[in-house]
Amino acid sequence: MDQSQLWQRYQDWLYYDPDLNFYLDISRMRFSDQFVQEMQPQFQKAFQDMADLEAGAIANPDENRMVGHYWLRNPDLAPNAELKADITDTLEKLKTFAAQVHSGYIHPPKEARFTDVISIGIGGSALGPQFVSQALAPLDAPLNLHFIDNTDPKGIDDQLEQLRDRLSSTLVLVISKSGGTPETRNGMIEVQKAYEAQNLNFGSHAVAITGKGSKLEQIAISEGWITTFPMHDWVGGRTSEMSAVGLVPAALQGIDIDSILEGAKTMDNLTRKSQLKTNPAALLSLAWYAAGNGKGEKDMVVLPYKDSLSLFSRYLQQLVMESLGKEKDLDGNTVYQGIAVYGNKGSTDQHAYVQQLREGVPNFFATFIEVLKDRDGDSPEVEAGVTSGDYLSGLLQGTRLALYENERDSITITVGEVTPRTVGALIALYERAVGLYASLVNINAYHQPGVEAGKKAAASILELQNNVIEVLQQEKTSLSLSEIAQKVNAPDSVEAIYKIIRHLHSNYRGVKVEGNWGKPSDLKISWAN
Amino acid sequence: MDQSQLWQRYQDWLYYDPDLNFYLDISRMRFSDQFVQEMQPQFQKAFQDMADLEAGAIANPDENRMVGHYWLRNPDLAPNAELKADITDTLEKLKTFAAQVHSGYIHPPKEARFTDVISIGIGGSALGPQFVSQALAPLDAPLNLHFIDNTDPKGIDDQLEQLRDRLSSTLVLVISKSGGTPETRNGMIEVQKAYEAQNLNFGSHAVAITGKGSKLEQIAISEGWITTFPMHDWVGGRTSEMSAVGLVPAALQGIDIDSILEGAKTMDNLTRKSQLKTNPAALLSLAWYAAGNGKGEKDMVVLPYKDSLSLFSRYLQQLVMESLGKEKDLDGNTVYQGIAVYGNKGSTDQHAYVQQLREGVPNFFATFIEVLKDRDGDSPEVEAGVTSGDYLSGLLQGTRLALYENERDSITITVGEVTPRTVGALIALYERAVGLYASLVNINAYHQPGVEAGKKAAASILELQNNVIEVLQQEKTSLSLSEIAQKVNAPDSVEAIYKIIRHLHSNYRGVKVEGNWGKPSDLKISWAN
Repeated sequence: MDQSQLWQRYQDWLYYDPDLNFYLDISRMRFSDQFVQEMQPQFQKAFQDMADLEAGAIANPDENRMVGHYWLRNPDLAPNAELKADITDTLEKLKTFAAQVHSGYIHPPKEARFTDVISIGIGGSALGPQFVSQALAPLDAPLNLHFIDNTDPKGIDDQLEQLRDRLSSTLVLVISKSGGTPETRNGMIEVQKAYEAQNLNFGSHAVAITGKGSKLEQIAISEGWITTFPMHDWVGGRTSEMSAVGLVPAALQGIDIDSILEGAKTMDNLTRKSQLKTNPAALLSLAWYAAGNGKGEKDMVVLPYKDSLSLFSRYLQQLVMESLGKEKDLDGNTVYQGIAVYGNKGSTDQHAYVQQLREGVPNFFATFIEVLKDRDGDSPEVEAGVTSGDYLSGLLQGTRLALYENERDSITITVGEVTPRTVGALIALYERAVGLYASLVNINAYHQPGVEAGKKAAASILELQNNVIEVLQQEKTSLSLSEIAQKVNAPDSVEAIYKIIRHLHSNYRGVKVEGNWGKPSDLKISWAN
Repeated sequence: MDQSQLWQRYQDWLYYDPDLNFYLDISRMRFSDQFVQEMQPQFQKAFQDMADLEAGAIANPDENRMVGHYWLRNPDLAPNAELKADITDTLEKLKTFAAQVHSGYIHPPKEARFTDVISIGIGGSALGPQFVSQALAPLDAPLNLHFIDNTDPKGIDDQLEQLRDRLSSTLVLVISKSGGTPETRNGMIEVQKAYEAQNLNFGSHAVAITGKGSKLEQIAISEGWITTFPMHDWVGGRTSEMSAVGLVPAALQGIDIDSILEGAKTMDNLTRKSQLKTNPAALLSLAWYAAGNGKGEKDMVVLPYKDSLSLFSRYLQQLVMESLGKEKDLDGNTVYQGIAVYGNKGSTDQHAYVQQLREGVPNFFATFIEVLKDRDGDSPEVEAGVTSGDYLSGLLQGTRLALYENERDSITITVGEVTPRTVGALIALYERAVGLYASLVNINAYHQPGVEAGKKAAASILELQNNVIEVLQQEKTSLSLSEIAQKVNAPDSVEAIYKIIRHLHSNYRGVKVEGNWGKPSDLKISWAN
């Protein structure tokens, strides 16, 4: 295709919304008009599926649940008055809460105001708040937000050490739908102990965001926590940014959450249209389908050319991969679907791996995210007539061109500025594109059946650990790994026991070991005390 | 394979070094003994290539350069006395420099001590320092390190705003081999202006790490910067962590750089062995080859189960992808090599995309990185007999098992603790594995010819921008995009001009535009002032 044909293709496929100042360009994805024609019936079905979902159909059939994240920014769409009231009441309550924390009306027992927030949550209860905080929190935010998003003891220690002198003015958010997520539960227990060590009443600093009637809600009530906010069972973790999960941390940082919601609502309106070319989420899902042949054959490399958006790809990793990475389709066929997502930011990543993108294994398509506004205020010239922002813009254009020349396709999304409204719109765009793509490939985007296997296996390991410790404590003599395995009735678990012993030994947990760790069968293990 | 066979395979392939307390397990990569036999001749060649490289051969033939990063931690290996002296002198000089900064002997003009460091660099001049800082910097580091690793104006503003009240006690490192990397040059100019705005003499706060005789070195000398450190032309950006590039920022943060070097030297000794099974870097490259059929058919998902190692995958993204992502092999054949790398940390990522890893498109292999020591000091119990660290360990084991059950392969690397020595060893392990893999697939791991195309295209865009501005300033009437394209003699660049105009207009740069941005051919553009 020569340059004038390319320019025509660019104009033909350019999507622009003046209200959001939002552009989508899929002209550098090499699909044919015939392909678009062939996809029309699937898109009509996808649009219908989405309309049913928004009307309250059981769109997550496995778990027999409605899928309601679109209602969060337009409660009038909720299928009944009770759900609508749930949404509006929660929103009012959390805005009042944030205002009262900011004013000092809600304050810690020993201080006039809260200064910091620790948010304890993982996956959908962390990635959205982290992305939004990095994108939008002002440098002079009324509260500083910190995250515990793992069960790494050293990681927890580092966060708590930084806050040691301010723990008495630190608010804790515990975010877990069930309250049973082990990483979050562990983080909560460790943080609670840190408060107790300073003779601070944890409950007077704590807020739960959790499902109604959950174990965590019961703890919050019984311990007299400041308040609780609901996680609805019709909102999945990876689409929960506009529920209390995302809005409470954002509001506490002084981010304009009404604008996030309004941006998402506006994008929802744009992406509800049933004409492919007038619907940017449909165009996006079309491009993904074209890139990977509807089978995820190409990775999605996400490159926002803006430092403040550098966590967007991590956010999308969850939204896209957990939604689309499925073994079975809705008819029970084995399909191994999904699209792998990675990326950090441009132009930084150009100096990391654009070498491979341009020349190496052609197993990806790129998504450039361009932000038109460089900064508040004027820019100095870095050479005659040229600013740092001109370079950023030129490097984006240049990289897109260099990739295309070598037959590496790309999508370009352009927004005017990184604002709460834009961020809301971007989230809504990708939520809808994922939902449409799932319909195109006939999968359930709203469950995650594969996550359980690892959790169950981990629970078995911990049970095995307790059994191993019990056996060792009872034995007088030292045992080999296979002898331990026999005694705990787990002859198939010698390798797991080896690793349990190695981990316990490394943390001085009472295990004595003789022999060479490189020759597991020679090891002799006993209880040390 | 049943459990007892798997346990046997685990023991057969387990690599363990007691001195480093380092383990490598490739037993869950499903290669056959026959495959290993077939690979032997290629490995013998790879070992010989590596021996030649370490002896000073021109291992980067395109650029006619030696490849000397292994000498940095063992200067006795340098091929001549001059190079050896270069290494040892630089190391002594930078250690003295760091000590003098810490003591206040070197201090800013208006303050007794430096409190902060801004490191300006990108790619190889940022990723190593960022990874090492996150992994190893103590919370009470003598100086706090900040990064400008892009040419994003808002990103630069945010860094400078945070340091506004401490700029007079902030040291600036400018890291660029040529001094011509635009992102770094732009960051330097903007930071310099911030110093000038506070009537601070930039040179008295600045240190250059750059090539001998570079443009940046000339600036540093002419402006009287504090000092300069060399970047040698036989050290590539992505293998420069143990040159001044990585060691100066690390030493300033009080990190034990001698231990980093010692750990790397120890790993170098282990990975220099020419028996496959006794060489962990060879085992690693064997596993990569087996996974992707020597063609990068599977992505490398890197999951360190330790918060402090969460930037390791970004570091490896560059090291692996820029080294291996090549269009041509050493004989000039078109091969499109490479291995895509992504990942953040476990168990956090389990809640983001393990759903896809377990059930979705099987286009990857995982690398688990396990750290045996949980934390300094004892851990509280989160349930009877179980700690947060037991959960982290159990979740790693459980996820590895769940993936393997679904025929998703994985490598597991285990280290005792995250220390300077371990970090040095991990870097050296991957440097060597990348070098060996490159030999196996017959490519040059030490050049990056594909990076130039995007840079050149970006430079053309900036030149075009200047021409467009000139035309607009000369014209009395408004012009269409294609008229502008004609006037700047770039009729094929209408799309590029559209984007230039859009970016200029969004930043109030004197361009006046009428019409609908969604209909580029209708736009009328003129100069506003």
